[in-house]
Amino acid sequence: MRIIVAGGDGFCGWPTALYLSQRGHDVTIIDNLARRKWDKELRSNSLTPISSLEERVNRWKELTGKTIRTYIGDLNHYDFLREVMRQAQPEAFVHFAEQRSAPYSMIDREHAIFTQVNNVVGTLNVAYAIREMAPDCHLIKLGTMGEYGQPNIDIEEGYIEIEHNGRKDVLPFPKQPGSFYHLSKVHDSYNLMFICRVWGLRVTDLNQGIVYGLHTEETKLDPALSNRLDYDAVFGTALNRFLIQAAIGHDLTVYGSGGQTRGFLNITDTVRCIEITAENPADQGEFRVFNQFTEEFSVLDLAKMVKRVAEQEGFTVNITHLENPRIEKESHYYNAKNTKLQDLGLQPNLLTDDVLSEIFRSVVIHKDRVISENVLPNVNWS
Amino acid sequence: MRIIVAGGDGFCGWPTALYLSQRGHDVTIIDNLARRKWDKELRSNSLTPISSLEERVNRWKELTGKTIRTYIGDLNHYDFLREVMRQAQPEAFVHFAEQRSAPYSMIDREHAIFTQVNNVVGTLNVAYAIREMAPDCHLIKLGTMGEYGQPNIDIEEGYIEIEHNGRKDVLPFPKQPGSFYHLSKVHDSYNLMFICRVWGLRVTDLNQGIVYGLHTEETKLDPALSNRLDYDAVFGTALNRFLIQAAIGHDLTVYGSGGQTRGFLNITDTVRCIEITAENPADQGEFRVFNQFTEEFSVLDLAKMVKRVAEQEGFTVNITHLENPRIEKESHYYNAKNTKLQDLGLQPNLLTDDVLSEIFRSVVIHKDRVISENVLPNVNWS
Repeated sequence: MRIIVAGGDGFCGWPTALYLSQRGHDVTIIDNLARRKWDKELRSNSLTPISSLEERVNRWKELTGKTIRTYIGDLNHYDFLREVMRQAQPEAFVHFAEQRSAPYSMIDREHAIFTQVNNVVGTLNVAYAIREMAPDCHLIKLGTMGEYGQPNIDIEEGYIEIEHNGRKDVLPFPKQPGSFYHLSKVHDSYNLMFICRVWGLRVTDLNQGIVYGLHTEETKLDPALSNRLDYDAVFGTALNRFLIQAAIGHDLTVYGSGGQTRGFLNITDTVRCIEITAENPADQGEFRVFNQFTEEFSVLDLAKMVKRVAEQEGFTVNITHLENPRIEKESHYYNAKNTKLQDLGLQPNLLTDDVLSEIFRSVVIHKDRVISENVLPNVNWS
Repeated sequence: MRIIVAGGDGFCGWPTALYLSQRGHDVTIIDNLARRKWDKELRSNSLTPISSLEERVNRWKELTGKTIRTYIGDLNHYDFLREVMRQAQPEAFVHFAEQRSAPYSMIDREHAIFTQVNNVVGTLNVAYAIREMAPDCHLIKLGTMGEYGQPNIDIEEGYIEIEHNGRKDVLPFPKQPGSFYHLSKVHDSYNLMFICRVWGLRVTDLNQGIVYGLHTEETKLDPALSNRLDYDAVFGTALNRFLIQAAIGHDLTVYGSGGQTRGFLNITDTVRCIEITAENPADQGEFRVFNQFTEEFSVLDLAKMVKRVAEQEGFTVNITHLENPRIEKESHYYNAKNTKLQDLGLQPNLLTDDVLSEIFRSVVIHKDRVISENVLPNVNWS
């Protein structure tokens, strides 16, 4: 299958591009390299040394004989995007190419507006480009479980049947996003739902949980293929951040009580979910929503797991509770459905102590690269 | 009360500014005069001759002794907006200043993106400026009943209690907007709901129905105070457009079967709703939603009413059904709640034959100004 991976230089996009290429698909990456620029802006870095995108795809070609084409540019530049679509004629378009950090979107007005305009306009352009250049192409759009917030009812996959005053309808599941970033994903979802209805596009919205881990089978093949790993308080996410804190002897910084519960998945499952979705496209005009996570954990659960595993590896670990920089519920009901991808064949890689140990050991190798002042939160919601 | 009316040169904003000024409030208008530019872009015009904003406020001062201050500029220019806020120190900010035409947003990619960026970023800037310069100011934001779409259940005012799998929560009412414009209003609503929660702002979201009519007590005082009236297929809305078609001997153009049902209100009620809302501000941190309309009609109902009234005035009127340029349900359940504003004192001016006749006669006076080629729809949803 001819597949474009937009954001194919990033944490999820790069391993996805490699996996799809390895599985025999014809892969094209679009990336504006923005994630590398944000490292410079924030004086941060990937824990792992990463090669340039050019070195990455060249090494992949040497090792496997497989070609991944690259286009360096921004989805907000429509002429660029349309030309890529004309040349690549994709059957699936995997869209990871958004600003994906909640804290980054909360830095100030400029970052809030950048995040919303970048994400919403980029996605509108992708939809227009598909309609103009490859109308049968299946758009696989990364959303987030954070779109739903923490309602006091079960979270369904995109839609919910509501009975009200004796009448019924199946309606979009109500959203309660918790940052300007999460809001941008909600805006995307509504735009695409409408676009499917009026233009007949095929779209799957993958509401992804928090991704942990680092390596996939493909990224492990060679240091030049290594994936990036974020640990700073802006781009680092809960589990990965705790692992790195444990590795450098920093307290594990739980925000507030740590009762915040979310859906999680291993990066090895992310890449598989994308393939499953591509192989089972949405119908013409269908806006299909899958919840893409495999397990639910509270933040404090994760800190305790990391502490246990790191101590088994001979490290000393403390858990500390910081004043929560976010405004969010710390004690709440959380039960989200995630059967649709498993019904299509996903076999989850669950978070065992062995899995955690393996990630931890990969992290420890690079612990001297950590810029320790980046570990503590510096962006406040209020 | 010190009140800013953003978009105070437009169809709803101008009569609102006059009404609030007449009622003794200290009114400041912000407007970038964009609506007048869109007339040029679309080679269209207001049915009624309208004076410049400067002439309007000067004449108002001569007639009443009351001052309305004006600032000409764009909400997307933050330095401008912040300076206005610093000088005006508003207690209420009435925000009409968005691109408000569904067909305009559907013209092409550029108009879709313009509409969403203009509306969403403008509103984000207003929220940031309130937070920075006047944090206790009550934001009165114009939304639209079109945010809800046409669900098969009763439409509540902003929120709905949902019982699901034995648990309950009160959640944002699900949205099903029908154009890139309506989507921009949904995006605004989600952004503001979040902003109230994290910053403690006071916001009332007025989901307004389709406004008909032309004059208010104030705009009638002098030709220089006259309100604009749109009849073209891009900015003209259902009832006003039919009245003008009847006046010029054009068939009343019902899109599709005409079973599309919507909420409507008279412009004289719009201005009163704004005052009621300003006098009863939302609490700190509250995102309050009122449905602002007084009656429901189907498009075909309206065409028949206009035909009857125009025939009483001696005009010959035919109703014709055009292929619907929009993608929308033409036969659907529609029952929306609208008690909150009436509970606060709104006494609706309902759509009687007398009311229709009066608007019709005002329209007939200016019928020679109609550019007839602008009456038929020229923007298609698909």
